[in-house]
Amino acid sequence: MIRIAVDAMGGDYAPKEQVEGAMLAIKKIKDIEIILYGDELQIKQLLTDDERITIVHAPYQIPMGEKNPISAIKTNKKTSSMARALSSLREGTADSVVSSGATQALIAGAHILVRRMKGFKRTAIAPVIPSVSGLPKILLDAGGNLTIKPEYMLQQAFFAKIYAQEVLNRPNPVVGLINIGTEPGKGRELDHEVFELFSKTDLFEFYGNIEPKTILTSPCDIFISDGFTANIVMKTMEGTAKGMGEILKKSLTSTFFGKIGALLARKNLKQFKKALNASEIGGAVIYGLYKPVIKAQGSSNAYGFYNGIRQAAEICRKDVFGKVKAYIDSTKETANE
Amino acid sequence: MIRIAVDAMGGDYAPKEQVEGAMLAIKKIKDIEIILYGDELQIKQLLTDDERITIVHAPYQIPMGEKNPISAIKTNKKTSSMARALSSLREGTADSVVSSGATQALIAGAHILVRRMKGFKRTAIAPVIPSVSGLPKILLDAGGNLTIKPEYMLQQAFFAKIYAQEVLNRPNPVVGLINIGTEPGKGRELDHEVFELFSKTDLFEFYGNIEPKTILTSPCDIFISDGFTANIVMKTMEGTAKGMGEILKKSLTSTFFGKIGALLARKNLKQFKKALNASEIGGAVIYGLYKPVIKAQGSSNAYGFYNGIRQAAEICRKDVFGKVKAYIDSTKETANE
Repeated sequence: MIRIAVDAMGGDYAPKEQVEGAMLAIKKIKDIEIILYGDELQIKQLLTDDERITIVHAPYQIPMGEKNPISAIKTNKKTSSMARALSSLREGTADSVVSSGATQALIAGAHILVRRMKGFKRTAIAPVIPSVSGLPKILLDAGGNLTIKPEYMLQQAFFAKIYAQEVLNRPNPVVGLINIGTEPGKGRELDHEVFELFSKTDLFEFYGNIEPKTILTSPCDIFISDGFTANIVMKTMEGTAKGMGEILKKSLTSTFFGKIGALLARKNLKQFKKALNASEIGGAVIYGLYKPVIKAQGSSNAYGFYNGIRQAAEICRKDVFGKVKAYIDSTKETANE
Repeated sequence: MIRIAVDAMGGDYAPKEQVEGAMLAIKKIKDIEIILYGDELQIKQLLTDDERITIVHAPYQIPMGEKNPISAIKTNKKTSSMARALSSLREGTADSVVSSGATQALIAGAHILVRRMKGFKRTAIAPVIPSVSGLPKILLDAGGNLTIKPEYMLQQAFFAKIYAQEVLNRPNPVVGLINIGTEPGKGRELDHEVFELFSKTDLFEFYGNIEPKTILTSPCDIFISDGFTANIVMKTMEGTAKGMGEILKKSLTSTFFGKIGALLARKNLKQFKKALNASEIGGAVIYGLYKPVIKAQGSSNAYGFYNGIRQAAEICRKDVFGKVKAYIDSTKETANE
């Protein structure tokens, strides 16, 4: 059985959507069991089916806008649902954590309570982004490391490759470097160095530079940049999609025929929205920890949260972290020779 | 009369769309005259009305993908339509240049042949981007300076403020710093320094950090970052808008009712597309040169190119560059005191 620790108090609609998401996951995925960390009383009121689900009482919710995440985690180590769920990985009582709590607190907590995979230099947050083809793509690193060395990005890209192979079923994932132009030599010093390093590696297939004007249509499976740039890309995609949705709605409702047209095409418009909806795709995985931690969207509904659990289970089932660790260990041996 | 030098050979559909755009501009804008730089024979065949339009024969077109823009400009100084148009500013035969030629060549050419405004440290390229409200916004700096100092960004933001006041009719333009979070202290070292500097200035109203997930809905009139980041934002917006358009089209045409709906709403969908279309808004202005140079989109049609000319005329009419120069000169005096 794969044991998944769920932070039931994290997220905008906690614990309701988290508990419902957990019940949905238990129903759909047969080889998992779930430990819900949260307010026992509140959870019990929501839990209509406790098959393979246990509760650990940890009622404190770290606020979404927490200004000092490190101290919040440290001070509430015993009572915070997030801290307790994260601790379960080191304690050996769970194999993976899913949380839709405050991102910064989750990252801080993961570093303090889960720690890095030995030899993996910089953890990365890897959200999954949509594409025109419908295949989900991986974006690295969406916030962890504002400044970073090329060799650390190589480790992250390799991690993403294993993830794409095992969880997204891509036989030969292709890595693209986010840049302001496609020609070699474009961009900053960092981009030149990464380009050179990635061009020489046989750890994965390197596509070269990609300009984000092809971010939804590029053949790459994995897009990589430093944490600042990738976070800006992710948020610009989000902002443009949201803004365009509003402009489209305004346009459609501005005339009678527009309204009728939108009514007739409502299924299609829903499908369009769904294609861009993060909860369809699952959460962001933190790469390079000792064990997998999944950040589901703060605004996750039960279905979005279920998708995060499904993703966590698949990562464990395919032993993604073990496969990356085997490579990291092998490079350490080479380095010691 | 405002004299506008037009690079008739630059752009994907040159010289046809450029010449038609020029004729449209002459018809609509009464206080301008246009000098067309390009292949005289080709232009004459297209020019059905030469009122207030003169031609200067300069037939060479710098290729759109030119790998070595500096040498391309230098070698073809006499025959390139772009180089000749740019030279006209220093020669005093024109007040502004509009070109939809290769961006890198235009920037290189502007630096070699037009030069910077004295005291203005780093020129910037400022494209105009759409918004949900319909008001165009300014994005800085979309490619000029991959690394930059906060004081130079202050000059650029001030330039944008004057432009927004005079050309976009914003009585009190607000400047936002593009960042990965809204709280002060977010982002890189550069962002912290810019935040501090902008917080103290009385040159313009500073909004604080803005995350690009509100790029289409934020109340800011001007968005600023270093040239790498702003270019990434611009290209991500472009890529997301384009990709979403394709996903929408795919969704709508996938069913019978979707097709009917799209047909009924076709005017609205067209309006939606128009709201996001760069040619409606005009070109990117290069800030900080001796005189204004406008980069119209390479794929400009006549209407898009006309909009670039309209923009150039308005910049001259309102003496945007003169107003910025007056401020720069005043700071020099203070510095010398």
